[in-house]
Amino acid sequence: MTAVPAGDWPRRRSALPERVSIREVGPRDGLQSEDPVPAADKVRLIDALSRTGLSRIEAVSYVHPKAIPQMADADEVWSAVDRRPGVRYSALAPNRKGAERALDAGFTEIEVVVSASDTHNRHNVRRGTDESLDDIAELITVLHDRGATVEVIVATSFGCPYEGDVPVSRVAGIIDRVVADGADRIAFGDTTGMATPRRVAELLDAVRGGHPDVDLLLHFHNTRGTALANVLTAMDYGVTEFDSSVGGLGGCPYAPGASGNLATEELVHMLDDMGVETGVDLDALLEVAELAERLVGRTLPSGVLRAGPRSRLSG
Amino acid sequence: MTAVPAGDWPRRRSALPERVSIREVGPRDGLQSEDPVPAADKVRLIDALSRTGLSRIEAVSYVHPKAIPQMADADEVWSAVDRRPGVRYSALAPNRKGAERALDAGFTEIEVVVSASDTHNRHNVRRGTDESLDDIAELITVLHDRGATVEVIVATSFGCPYEGDVPVSRVAGIIDRVVADGADRIAFGDTTGMATPRRVAELLDAVRGGHPDVDLLLHFHNTRGTALANVLTAMDYGVTEFDSSVGGLGGCPYAPGASGNLATEELVHMLDDMGVETGVDLDALLEVAELAERLVGRTLPSGVLRAGPRSRLSG
Repeated sequence: MTAVPAGDWPRRRSALPERVSIREVGPRDGLQSEDPVPAADKVRLIDALSRTGLSRIEAVSYVHPKAIPQMADADEVWSAVDRRPGVRYSALAPNRKGAERALDAGFTEIEVVVSASDTHNRHNVRRGTDESLDDIAELITVLHDRGATVEVIVATSFGCPYEGDVPVSRVAGIIDRVVADGADRIAFGDTTGMATPRRVAELLDAVRGGHPDVDLLLHFHNTRGTALANVLTAMDYGVTEFDSSVGGLGGCPYAPGASGNLATEELVHMLDDMGVETGVDLDALLEVAELAERLVGRTLPSGVLRAGPRSRLSG
Repeated sequence: MTAVPAGDWPRRRSALPERVSIREVGPRDGLQSEDPVPAADKVRLIDALSRTGLSRIEAVSYVHPKAIPQMADADEVWSAVDRRPGVRYSALAPNRKGAERALDAGFTEIEVVVSASDTHNRHNVRRGTDESLDDIAELITVLHDRGATVEVIVATSFGCPYEGDVPVSRVAGIIDRVVADGADRIAFGDTTGMATPRRVAELLDAVRGGHPDVDLLLHFHNTRGTALANVLTAMDYGVTEFDSSVGGLGGCPYAPGASGNLATEELVHMLDDMGVETGVDLDALLEVAELAERLVGRTLPSGVLRAGPRSRLSG
């Protein structure tokens, strides 16, 4: 064993954040990739999540029902949700019409999306990245005028399934642009699970420091097993906000049963053991993950849901 | 985004090992938890693995066939293996009789096991940890006398499913004992996937430095999603040897389909992207993972097997 100098655990612990803020994306990002679920079940899921200690929930998206039929009932869902004080609910809007629907529904935190990869953006919305950035600039004005904050989600930030590696300079350029246009928050999406600790470090090297006042959130997929290694790397860089999805809701584009979104309970479980506070009650969350499995009628990929937390002993 | 001081990627990369040595444990540790596979198929699997660039393979174990019928054909398998020059093959032996069979079969690298948790050790071999350590001391003498090296695998090093947390001082004490008794190598087994980056750091804090000349290998399970985060943490401490199992072979004790052993291709895939050499050809390894799936007749949990490496682009 090589004794390379490395910090002892108490010292390493003190370099970690005291607290991490988790945004639960199962009801939106997760369910939009599952077979359709009735509105009442979505409400049940959101309300159950809001009682676990989670402080942020992505509730719905206002997309065209032909594009994503799973989200056609956004208004019905949101109007029935028992909005819990202290929980921040957000909605995704792909365009001006969606943004206006989200505002009319009373959302004050709105997410918009652009792909760092031009090819991926064209596959998604039939427009180039630059055109989408122009749209987003206009959306930010509209949303700010009506008192909402705007998060720009940069999809394929760690790689594109069509183009391969996406240069970090390209992602950094997009950040410069949307921050100049007024974005309040940035999320880096690992859309198809191409992030590794090296990609996370390279991207954060390129953008951190440049925009110290913009909230930064990372959204990892566990498609290739690296999600928690990526979280660990991002925390080393001072990132304290992560997306995750209860039970790992949200299929993988490649194969049924394969892992897509990082499961919230795997994230909470690791952070709990490392002494990083999330505010989430893991036992309560695991009950919601069981509910999520019943609602979608399939086994979800979460290991902590399957095996239980490490503290759960055998008889 | 908080700009906590963190190294830039090139500096972080230079702190990582140049090279990691992977021991493939699918043929033994993996297959012993699967439905029995014919000897000829085991030989096919071992020979295919030996052509991927893997330099170490745990081939068989010499356990009593009543205890683990999956390994009853160890001699038949080993005698038919096309032993590739440059590949280190090892065998596990639970006791003196097994050790003598392994020696007679020509193995020169033998593994023996003890559980850090007394309860777990009693469940496994109906003896206390101290009694097993006495047995191991005797085994080391026998094996050294016949020219073999001995690795002591310390199971439940990161937690026990019956006792819960295992004090690092207890694990460190076991290491002191077996090193004094002549062990050539130590492996820490995360038997039921209870390791997290915090547990890895605490254990390595407790033992590194004390035994700088003993080879140290870590064996993680991905039961709760933390395996690659644990690898990352261990590399920060200078550990350069890891076990993994092709395709993630080896079921989980809790539920069918749940993840047990870390999949070799997930480990190679992450290390490849981080510039850490393993010597393994990932494409060749993925073909063997497909073979492993056919041999056991079930879908294996490896994400990289499902989704392909991050470099595999969509059409």
